[in-house]
Order: sequence, then C-alpha cells, then structure tokens
Amino acid sequence: MKNVLLTIEYDGTDFSGWQKQPNQRTVQGELEAALSFICNKEIKINGTSRTDAGVHAFGQRASFKGEFGIPVEKIKVAVNNYFLKDKGIPGAVGDLRITKVEEVPMDFHARFNAKAKTYIYKIRNAAEPDPFDRNYCYQISRPLNINAMVKACGHIEGTHDFKCFQAQGSNIIDDTTRTIFSLQLYEDVINDEMESNVDFNDKLITMVVTGDGFLYNMVRIIAGTLIDVGIGKISHKQIPEIIKGRNRQNAGHTAPPQGLYLQEVFY
Amino acid sequence: MKNVLLTIEYDGTDFSGWQKQPNQRTVQGELEAALSFICNKEIKINGTSRTDAGVHAFGQRASFKGEFGIPVEKIKVAVNNYFLKDKGIPGAVGDLRITKVEEVPMDFHARFNAKAKTYIYKIRNAAEPDPFDRNYCYQISRPLNINAMVKACGHIEGTHDFKCFQAQGSNIIDDTTRTIFSLQLYEDVINDEMESNVDFNDKLITMVVTGDGFLYNMVRIIAGTLIDVGIGKISHKQIPEIIKGRNRQNAGHTAPPQGLYLQEVFY
Repeated sequence: MKNVLLTIEYDGTDFSGWQKQPNQRTVQGELEAALSFICNKEIKINGTSRTDAGVHAFGQRASFKGEFGIPVEKIKVAVNNYFLKDKGIPGAVGDLRITKVEEVPMDFHARFNAKAKTYIYKIRNAAEPDPFDRNYCYQISRPLNINAMVKACGHIEGTHDFKCFQAQGSNIIDDTTRTIFSLQLYEDVINDEMESNVDFNDKLITMVVTGDGFLYNMVRIIAGTLIDVGIGKISHKQIPEIIKGRNRQNAGHTAPPQGLYLQEVFY
Repeated sequence: MKNVLLTIEYDGTDFSGWQKQPNQRTVQGELEAALSFICNKEIKINGTSRTDAGVHAFGQRASFKGEFGIPVEKIKVAVNNYFLKDKGIPGAVGDLRITKVEEVPMDFHARFNAKAKTYIYKIRNAAEPDPFDRNYCYQISRPLNINAMVKACGHIEGTHDFKCFQAQGSNIIDDTTRTIFSLQLYEDVINDEMESNVDFNDKLITMVVTGDGFLYNMVRIIAGTLIDVGIGKISHKQIPEIIKGRNRQNAGHTAPPQGLYLQEVFY
C-alpha cells in the first residue's frame, strides 16, 4: 500500500472546475480516468482545492492511496502521455499535466494536511482589452488607484472573521475566521512590442495572497473588493468596518474566475 | 461611397481560419456578420492574408467599400461591442477585435496593395511543456542549436525561387519567386516565477520574418526547416541546395499553426 501526492498544473478554461461531475469535463475526472487506466484499478483522488470552472492552477495538489503495479516515479510520464494519446499533431500540448509525483506517509492527506495556500489573481488594467489574455486575467479598462488598493491590503492581512468575503451558496461554513499571512500587489508594465494595440500605460496587476485557508470565493471577493477600492467605489478606510460587519453585501463584487490561479500549497 | 481599411487582432484558437466557410466559425464570417448588422446592409470584406485555422493575428488588415449611415470612426467601437453583446460577464473579452479603422482612397485594396508582411513564429524550447502556452507556440523539448539556425536564416534571406517552401495543395501557384527582406531569431529566457515547472534553461525563440509575399504555408515550412536545422536533422549548409532544388520534399517539416502570428502589413 502506498500514498502518493501529485502536483498538478492546468489551464482551467476548458474545464468545468476541479470537482468530478457527471457529463462534465473536470480536472478530477480526467485525472482519475488516467490514473485508473495506468494503475489498472479504480483510483479516487483527494484534491487540495476545489477550483471553480475557469480557474487555473500552477500547483494544485492531490493524494491517493493504493497498491498498484507501476512504480511511483513513472506515474508522471505515464499520465502526461495518456492525456496526449489522441493528439497526433507535432508539438501538441494538453491543458492539464502532472508536474511532480512523490510518495508520502500513509497518514498524509492533500487537503487536511495543508498548512497554507497561495493564490494569484491577475488584473489587466489597460484602456483596450487583449484577446490573447481573455481567459487569463480580469480586464479593467478604468484606471486603478493602486496606492489605495495597497492600503486596503494592509487592512485585510492578519487574523479576522472573514464572513464578509464568503459567497452565499451551498458551500458556506460557520467558522469563518482565517489568517491571511500576506496580501501583496505587484505592478508590471505590459510591454509587448509584437502586439499592435499595447499602450505604455498598460499594466498587469498581480495580487498574491497566502493564508491558512480560504472561504468559498474568498480570493475572488477580495480581488473584486480591491478593484472597487481602486476605482473609488469603496474607500480603503472602510475595509475594517466591512470586515467587522460580517455582511457579504458590504464587500465588493466577485471578480471573475479567469484571473485566479492556485499557485502553491504548503504542508 | 467610402473605402474603409480595418486593422484586426485575433486569437485564432477557436476559429476555422480567416476565410468564410459554411457552418464554420471564421474571422471573415464573424466580421462580415458584425459589419453587415452595424451598417445595415450586406458587407463583404477583402482580407490581406487568409490565415489557417489556429493561426493568430496582431495586425491583420481587411478593406471594404460601401455607402453606410454610421461614421467611419464609430465602426471600431460598434463592432467590438457587437462581439461582446451576448456576454453579460464582468471583464468579458472576445477573441477577435478591430484595433483601428481608417478611410482610404477608392482604389486601395487591402491585399493587392500590400508591399510587405511581417509574420512571427513562436517556439518554446523547454524540457517540459506549458499548458498555458499550448495554443500560442510550438513546443520543442529537444535542445535547439540556435547558432546553426541563425546561419540557416542567412541563406534564406534575399530574393529566391522558394518553391521548396510551398505546401502541396489547392493553393499552389507557378510564380514562386519572393523576396525575404529579413529573417531574424530572438531568444528570450522564460522567467515566470509564478509557474512551478519553469527551468532556468527554458527559452522562447521568436522568429520574425518580413517579405514581399509568402507562398502557401511558407512561414510554417521555414519555421519547421529551421527547427530541423536546430536539432541537427538538416545542416545549415544544405539550405542553398534545398532552395535550388525547388522540391518541397527536401525542406523541413511544416510547423503547426498555433505558433504563427500575422504581425504587420506594410502599404
């Protein structure tokens, strides 16, 4: 009996999210089908984060236990080749791949053992949108006041009851206190000489957030709230009272899924 | 009566190429539908380059003539909004947009008046593929000898009979002499700290080619031939005899469409 931990990268554009659902193409479903074929027995995996449709991952994790004929170190190449098996085109690359496989102690669980996670949210702040980035960031045409957004980040970092940042829906939970270890914004000038319509004022704003856990849609609501601060709809000074109020209605909008990436899980 | 020249940008991934075809989503078809709706009469456009399925454009051009109620300078915004009309999602961006509209003299034709065109071909040279780049470059895992490729470029620049670089098929023509003004390779280190599986040896090789005209699949065959030189399958010293032989069989393979971008048209 072995316990195996996978690190997984995917472009979420063409997936109905992580979680297996009937008649939908999901990351969990594709991985379980590939692993079950390769291990020649039914494999069920436990993912760390149930990313929504359109959300991406550079470093998703999932673990599974079992007895299987194939050596653990061969699983990565076998699964990645399985995903490509129907594409006889030179240079064909799939939208999902395993980047690392490791054997872990039997009591290890990819979700329950996670101590912290880092998510990235990408915002493209430019007057004109870019067709090539449409599935990979949130296009905001109005100028964003990044200084105000940075001040808002300072109010969000730390241990708080974050009920105001929990989406209404089926996944709500009662214990809504979490610790945000770090919430940073990075600003890069978009400088693609090849593209015809890039302006010298075009910016990519990358939000990087690390916390011990996140409520349903919490990262996207934080991103939407920061953008609402950036356009002046919410003042950064209101953030402490928004958090204290524990009311989703007072926080900003939910930023769309395509800007969100699960970057790293810490154990 | 007016003659209008459009500059167009598109991600070719979800198009069956430029040229209008029944029951296929094509760039020409989408543009003609939008323009006909906005101008309230049937519009037919002449594109500069009939890009294949999966091929992208930063600066495609197309012209059309007509009498229409809408001022020329409003066409860009009206068409771009038309493409977004069914997407009620915040930050939604389409895969096709007009970046510029200008009025041109009545005898101007977007294709016949083109003096030169620049295409880009992107090669990702890295041991591990990147799911996020799968539709935007040609993944080559074996190390490429860029010095040999640069030497091969020197043999291709200039005025030659390029029959060896013309694909067999329905679009073949007899006069196969063209002038390549410039064929350059740029090498960039891929340095995305956010992604888990980027190696310090990973490179993006960008081929930039400008010529007075290109035969069917010529840019993709040049890219494939350079890659065959880079992996040592063809010596750069063979290029002059390959060109002289005028035989497609002697040149390299046809690189896939997703690495190709129409960058600019010169008038």
